[in-house]
Order: sequence, then C-alpha cells, then structure tokens
Amino acid sequence: MSSKSIKVYAPATVANVVCGFDILGFAVNEPGDELIMDLCDKPGVVISSIEGDGGKLPLDADRNTVAAGVKSILKQLGREDIGVKLKLKKKMPLGSGLGSSAASSVAGIFAINELLDRPLSKEELLPFAMEGEALACGHGHADNVAPALFGGFTLIKSYEPLEVIALPVPNLYCALLYPHVDVPTRDARQIIRSKVLLKDAVTQWGNIAGLISALYLGDYDLLGRCMKDVIVEPIRSMLIPEFYKMKEIAMHHGALGFGISGSGPTVFSLFRSPDDAQRVLLTLQQVLLDKGIASNIYLSEINKNGPVIL
Amino acid sequence: MSSKSIKVYAPATVANVVCGFDILGFAVNEPGDELIMDLCDKPGVVISSIEGDGGKLPLDADRNTVAAGVKSILKQLGREDIGVKLKLKKKMPLGSGLGSSAASSVAGIFAINELLDRPLSKEELLPFAMEGEALACGHGHADNVAPALFGGFTLIKSYEPLEVIALPVPNLYCALLYPHVDVPTRDARQIIRSKVLLKDAVTQWGNIAGLISALYLGDYDLLGRCMKDVIVEPIRSMLIPEFYKMKEIAMHHGALGFGISGSGPTVFSLFRSPDDAQRVLLTLQQVLLDKGIASNIYLSEINKNGPVIL
Repeated sequence: MSSKSIKVYAPATVANVVCGFDILGFAVNEPGDELIMDLCDKPGVVISSIEGDGGKLPLDADRNTVAAGVKSILKQLGREDIGVKLKLKKKMPLGSGLGSSAASSVAGIFAINELLDRPLSKEELLPFAMEGEALACGHGHADNVAPALFGGFTLIKSYEPLEVIALPVPNLYCALLYPHVDVPTRDARQIIRSKVLLKDAVTQWGNIAGLISALYLGDYDLLGRCMKDVIVEPIRSMLIPEFYKMKEIAMHHGALGFGISGSGPTVFSLFRSPDDAQRVLLTLQQVLLDKGIASNIYLSEINKNGPVIL
Repeated sequence: MSSKSIKVYAPATVANVVCGFDILGFAVNEPGDELIMDLCDKPGVVISSIEGDGGKLPLDADRNTVAAGVKSILKQLGREDIGVKLKLKKKMPLGSGLGSSAASSVAGIFAINELLDRPLSKEELLPFAMEGEALACGHGHADNVAPALFGGFTLIKSYEPLEVIALPVPNLYCALLYPHVDVPTRDARQIIRSKVLLKDAVTQWGNIAGLISALYLGDYDLLGRCMKDVIVEPIRSMLIPEFYKMKEIAMHHGALGFGISGSGPTVFSLFRSPDDAQRVLLTLQQVLLDKGIASNIYLSEINKNGPVIL
C-alpha cells in the first residue's frame, strides 16, 4: 500500500452557462489541474507542494480544499490510518470563474478513490467535492464540482436532496478568456439582487428549458438562442471590462452564445468551428490589450469524462 | 366551396404543469370542444349556436374567441370574401383551468385551415389562436393554445420572438378534477406576487430543467420528482378547497405528481396506471363531496396530436 502513487488531471468548468444560474455547468479539456498523490505509512493528509498558485493557497491541510475532501473520504471509509501526500500543480488561474477550487477538489477525491480501488461511485464522491468548495467559496454549490467530476454538461436538479443529471454533450468548442482583473466570488454573489421580477424569472426558465431541449435534440442553433440571461448577466457584466463589446464581436463572428463563466471575470463562448473560436479569442484579447488589460485565452472541446489518470 | 362543412374536436390542456409557470403545457384526450364549421356564400363569420356554455359565451362574432381567430386568418389570407358559419359544442367547463377558450380557438383555426386545404402550417396557425386567447383572458399566453394545437407536451421557449418546442410525450394517464368553485383567471393571476426570491427562482428552474430532461429520458420517476412549485402553487392553492389534502391522497396512491391545472380550480395528477388514476379521482371527488362541493372528473391519456377531424 505504502508505495502507491497516482497522477491525475481534473478539468476547469464553466458554471451557470448564461441562463442556468446555480444549476448548470460544463467541463472543458483545458485548462485544468494536475495532482500527484502518494500513499504513505504515516497517517494524515499532508500537502507537500503547490505550484502555480502564486503562493495564495494554504499548505495547511485543515484549510486546503483538496485536503479537506480527501480527509472526509478517509473518515467516511474508516481509513484514517492511511497517510496521503499531495503535490498540486495549478494549471489555471485562481479566482477566475473557471472553477479552480472545484478542479483541485475533484482531482483530490478522484485520486484517493482510485488509489483505494474505487470504493465509491462518482455519485458518491460528489458530496465530498462539495465540502472542499464550501471551504473555498463559503457555500457548497455543485455547479462547478459536478461537471468537473462527471465531465460534459451537468444539471443540478436540486440540492435537497442533491440530484445531478448528466446531460448530452454537444460537439462544440469553448473559447475562454480570462482578463486580469479581480472579481472575488463572494463580491460577485453579493451584487446580485435577492429578489427578481417574476416575469424575468419566467423568461429565464423558458430559456433554461429550451437549452436543455437543445442539448437532447443536438440543436445547436436552438442552444444559442437560449443562451440569454436577463437576471444575473446585466449585473455581473458591470464587473467585466468591455463585456458587451466582446459579446458583440463574438456573436458576429460565429459564436452560438457568449457569457460569463461562473462568477467571472472569465468570459466564455461556444463555437461549431475551432478556427472561428481561435480568431475571436485573439480579437478579444487585443480589445482588452488596447485598454491595457492582459488576459489568458484557452480553446478546447467540451470535456466528456471528467478527471483522468495521467 | 359553399357546400363545404367540417366537424372537428380540440382538446383541453393543462398549463404550467406545476413547475413550468407560463412556459409548459400538455393536452389531454378528454375533455375537449366540438366545432362544426360550414362555408357559405355570404361573407363574414357568424356563430349560429353555442351549446354547453350555460349561455355565458358571446354569439357576437366580434367578441367571440373562436370567431376572432377565424376572422384573423381570413384577413391574413386575403379571403374575407368567404362566409363561415360556426356551431360550437362546449364539452368542458368554462373558467375551470382546462384551457376552455384555447380549445375553442384552436378548433376554429384548425377547422378553417382544413376547409381551405391547409394554407398554413400549425406553426403559422399558433399566433391566430393566441389572438383568441387574448380576447378571452386579457393576455396572449400560449401555454394552453400551443399544446391544444400541437398535442403532447409543449414548451414556450420565448414570446419575443414566439418559439414553441414540441417535447417528447410520456405514456402517462392524466386525472383531472374540476371542483365547482369559481376562480376567474384574472383573479388567479392577480394574487401572484410580481417579485420572487432569486433562491426560489433557482429552485424552480432546477425543477423545470429536470422535468425537460425527464421527458427526453422517458424517466417518469424523475418527472415526478421535478413536479414541485415553490412560487405559484403556495399562493394559488389557497383558492382551491382541500388542495393539500387531495395532493397527499394522490401522491400516496400512485400519482407521480399533483398540481393546479392552469390557474385552477381544476387539479391534475399524472399516473402510470389508469386504475390508480381512477381510484384516486373517485376518492378525491368524495373528499370534496364531504365538504359539500361537487366536481367533474376526467381520465385520459396525454393527447398526442392536437385537434382532429371527427
């Protein structure tokens, strides 16, 4: 047992998907996090190193999202006799709206479950990944961890009880742009109003219902027509530089839809063609650069399987 | 032309379907409306008789929903030279939440379109049926006319532009109970609050998204788990006698879900077994009778095709 080691990769995720605030998300192939996990003789979970976080993430296992999920699983399985060493390589920006903490949490619970020969199903792993999220974000939402764990598009049907539905995965390309501006998740949540107009809610659930239909029908034009948000985007977009200019450019150059990834500031758009996606990304990057704002860009297909062993 | 005649039937409909306020509806095989339409030489639309309405519906073609839709179509087609005589047999209660005016409107536009050898598709007919609804209810909602016209389950994805999606039709039985109490549509709309909590809206759109998934998956247990309404039902149920008692009985005897049909006072429930549905209907009818309230009950499969020629 003590010599077992594993290296895994867990994907970034786009939560909300424009009209599905707090209930929808999908995973992308890039970016993502790498995790090396070793079992060892001395009980307890130790984080030996974290790279790529600029020193922002705590090495203290009691305050670290990855360690929290792993410790919960070991406790649940009655295996607190096991020792675990973690090396985390963050290969995506933190606080960017790409589900950074979810990717790390999922990498951790996936790795320990693999090392223990899969005592738990993915459905059973989900609540442990949510515990890590709660530690990172102050709330136990599943719209990043569920797609990071299952891959593809996931619907959080309900929280009490927790029920996740794996939706059909469209063959589309996701263009991501992370502008280097700071939008903490807590702030992005606080500016959203706690009450909404019923008529806006009706518009929103028409779009959500249409988007779900579009995924089952494989109707990407319909998918695009449903990617509208009358509730959250009008408010959160204020935190993102040049949001509507970028949206207009993307929509005029082949994007099916464009919106905020999670709580931002990353923006995403979906394309049929990787060439269109790439062209738009470079254009948007230049738009921001002209305003003095640097950005990271990523282009990949929708991730289909969640975390993998490297 | 002048001797052409047709007899048609259009189905009652259940709008909202618990969690899909203003966007979802489905048609049932019974009850429904019958309409006999004759073409004649004298231009204009005349209603020669209406049966089964207790004298409540206007024979004046300018104020009648059926005539309004027919006249609009004739105008649109440039065929105001045609004369039309209508005989309407209401075979369902008015103001019951069963889409009575929608069934009549749809019967009318379907009949004239058939008599003119189908110049318009069902998609093209929909706006004309909505005009009739606007006359009857004071608002041009499509959640009754769309399923009455297309049959099955329909989603009103959006109103501007109007976009309707035909959803997969579950092989289920619908039990309807119309208690003889008065709940005018306008009143039922007015008691709904214009603002809702965002967290309730999120719960609702999780359920709607889940219900759409359930229809595509043919997963009737999931369908039942999604038939929850935290926004409209808690308010409108106050207008319906013994609502929660009836719901409890239905859910404990095989119903997948139970709710208000449209704006009520009719209640509906969905069942896998027609025997369970029939037993529950009789039990609920007795519950109301014990309180001195009479009711009509109906049991049928989900209607699959919309209006038919008799």
